[in-house]
Amino acid sequence: MTLHSFVAADALPAHDKFTNLPNRRTGQTKPDRPRVVILGAGFGGLSAARALSRCPADITIVDRRNYHLFQPLLYQVATAGLSPADIAGPIRRVLRRQDNARTVLGTVQDIDTSAQTVILDDMRLPYDYLIVATGARHAYSDESWETFAPGLKKIEDATTIRAKILMAFERAEIATDAKLRQRLLTFIVVGGGPTGVEMAGAIAELAKRALKRDFRNIGPGAARIILLQRDPRVLPGFAEGLSRAAAKALEKLGVEVLTQIEVESVDANGVSAAGQRFDAHTVIWAAGVMASSAGRWLDAPRDAYGRIEVEPDLSVPGHGNIFAIGDTASVRSADGRPLPGIAPVAKREGKYVARLVHARITRGKDPAPFRYRHVSRMATVGRSSAVVDLGFLRLTGCPGWLMWSAAHVYFLIGFRNKFAVALNWLWAYLTYESGMRLITEPKK
Amino acid sequence: MTLHSFVAADALPAHDKFTNLPNRRTGQTKPDRPRVVILGAGFGGLSAARALSRCPADITIVDRRNYHLFQPLLYQVATAGLSPADIAGPIRRVLRRQDNARTVLGTVQDIDTSAQTVILDDMRLPYDYLIVATGARHAYSDESWETFAPGLKKIEDATTIRAKILMAFERAEIATDAKLRQRLLTFIVVGGGPTGVEMAGAIAELAKRALKRDFRNIGPGAARIILLQRDPRVLPGFAEGLSRAAAKALEKLGVEVLTQIEVESVDANGVSAAGQRFDAHTVIWAAGVMASSAGRWLDAPRDAYGRIEVEPDLSVPGHGNIFAIGDTASVRSADGRPLPGIAPVAKREGKYVARLVHARITRGKDPAPFRYRHVSRMATVGRSSAVVDLGFLRLTGCPGWLMWSAAHVYFLIGFRNKFAVALNWLWAYLTYESGMRLITEPKK
Repeated sequence: MTLHSFVAADALPAHDKFTNLPNRRTGQTKPDRPRVVILGAGFGGLSAARALSRCPADITIVDRRNYHLFQPLLYQVATAGLSPADIAGPIRRVLRRQDNARTVLGTVQDIDTSAQTVILDDMRLPYDYLIVATGARHAYSDESWETFAPGLKKIEDATTIRAKILMAFERAEIATDAKLRQRLLTFIVVGGGPTGVEMAGAIAELAKRALKRDFRNIGPGAARIILLQRDPRVLPGFAEGLSRAAAKALEKLGVEVLTQIEVESVDANGVSAAGQRFDAHTVIWAAGVMASSAGRWLDAPRDAYGRIEVEPDLSVPGHGNIFAIGDTASVRSADGRPLPGIAPVAKREGKYVARLVHARITRGKDPAPFRYRHVSRMATVGRSSAVVDLGFLRLTGCPGWLMWSAAHVYFLIGFRNKFAVALNWLWAYLTYESGMRLITEPKK
Repeated sequence: MTLHSFVAADALPAHDKFTNLPNRRTGQTKPDRPRVVILGAGFGGLSAARALSRCPADITIVDRRNYHLFQPLLYQVATAGLSPADIAGPIRRVLRRQDNARTVLGTVQDIDTSAQTVILDDMRLPYDYLIVATGARHAYSDESWETFAPGLKKIEDATTIRAKILMAFERAEIATDAKLRQRLLTFIVVGGGPTGVEMAGAIAELAKRALKRDFRNIGPGAARIILLQRDPRVLPGFAEGLSRAAAKALEKLGVEVLTQIEVESVDANGVSAAGQRFDAHTVIWAAGVMASSAGRWLDAPRDAYGRIEVEPDLSVPGHGNIFAIGDTASVRSADGRPLPGIAPVAKREGKYVARLVHARITRGKDPAPFRYRHVSRMATVGRSSAVVDLGFLRLTGCPGWLMWSAAHVYFLIGFRNKFAVALNWLWAYLTYESGMRLITEPKK
């Protein structure tokens, strides 16, 4: 969604208008105040903005959406476990009490580093410090596959996938041709990372439990869920023992886990992989992401995933006052391994950059180069099992799930959401019930 | 949404397939069992289906959607007070334990009364008894107005209106032209019935309370909410004292209530009415509805609103085995006044027809002609005031609101939803907070 389509030419704000924030009480602006512009209100951008709450600067956070999305739980919206509003909070509400911050709904077109200006599709934002946290989106080896195998990054992706999964059951219920019915009841998830594992587990439960008694002509038990993983094991980022545990938990849910299998083509009726043909009406793409265009805007050195190869202080090479964080940045951990694109990393990077910018503005001492030691990882498999790797502690099964739930509920922004999510989970857990099975946005 | 776009030709079920339901345990069908087809899973259709749970017949309920929508609260989705899933429940879940009932997701194209068959866009459903409960949609004196003034009947309507209202504030925040900003912050509701009154009150609260601290360049207090009513008073169906109370409550919220004012034209920039011009970016249509095409399908006598003029037993003239209920039927109360299109009436009609059909099938005695005595009406104005007319009891203000809330939470289908809605309301009440302010479906 871009603001562009909504704003008439006469609505373009004067350049100076967004230079400085008027004081809440006096209405006065301080033209000498440094301007910090943050692009993206994900985990990285938002924690940077909040960490700057005491900084004597004018903060402007720009996002295409008016809400912060708790992406780690997006798969639950896609599988009718949660409602979009459960995992999204309006950015303005998050920052409403931070008087030095302002929210702008807009889409970045380019960055003019010589003029130190961000170009939105309908205004220009001057900056003294720029924090780029524009994230990543799912990527395909062949772009044409996206039509048949939607990915999972935005709320619209999730509601589209949800409608597609639920419509498959509706169609199977009235299908007379056995082959067609089986294709409708076959669900393929491509990619064995956390998202793929969580999607596959959630679909299996939706099919085998929540929908159990709903239909007359089909038993959703007939559903076939296949997870295709290119690597030798699922959750390659995790310790091997945890990968095995996750695979076993998936198979216990009835998911067919196929590893070391490369997808060759995707079409409307299924997937071809490793010489085999898999007929399926629903194919979900959870294999690999590509960083946003930020690297291109800044014409900065990038890695294979389009992420900016930042300096030890997370600044963009050649631009001391521009920083890249989160999925847009390629950062290595203490032991030299690249950091994964997960929320805790993005948050820590956001806080670090905020501290650095604050130090520069207040002429304080720069903090030491960014370091990130223990990467902790979590992935859930269905409603009562998860694998957790905190480095010093590894959990599987139900203990893992409890840890995982606690962590996710805790990190959800906004108490109301926490409460609603906890409530939904409790309900789903007690009743095997899935309350959000609404087809509100049917897509092909 | 039609099933059509989803079902390939080879998926068309055999005619006989849907003639009779297989027994859950034995898998046997009883070909001699009468077939009752219900069109529409609104309040009327769903209560008819449930009231037939003990009837020795095969019930098939058809709806375009896979969920039952609690329409009376739709305005709260449109004003970011509730989430779609809070007021919608999957039809299959409602009927899952009713073994003699089956749900079909489909769109009715026509009814072949001679062949006693309902024609969906991809299957034909034979019936012995047909219950038509296909509801109504909002109607315009000039169809071209719909583009500029969306109505409120479907979930998509509500999310579209929600996005439009919230985007208006976003645009106003960056607008430099004062005239444009005022237009963006002006909201017009056309129609002073319950929906119009409730929309106007909810928008006023969203603007003046929930959004209070969110913006930097605009105070949402600057928002202007105008209610245009053609009749001499709002809530014309209510007792005069209650109309006055509602108008006063609206004005207390800052809504400008203009009565006896006829809309002449609607365009992208506002409304012309009674020679005056009202500049507004957001115009919401809550003036009048038109019944579904059921009357046309059956070529039955209709009233001015397209509702079928049914017999005293709610059967369609000339078709003893076809019944029309809810917003599709024109029924008069004991005192000869036409019954309003509200949920309690539709439910009572559904239960009555179910009793009648059950009697016919079991060769029992027909019940006495349908009678409906006390029409009770309710409308809420904002978050702490409502007008309630139960005939024997009239309430306004906070007592009215408590009564209204209790009634609505009670009637919501499905405990989970009740609980979630109660939770949301409690939360909104305690915090003046509106949790669902997400722009997920931006339209024009």
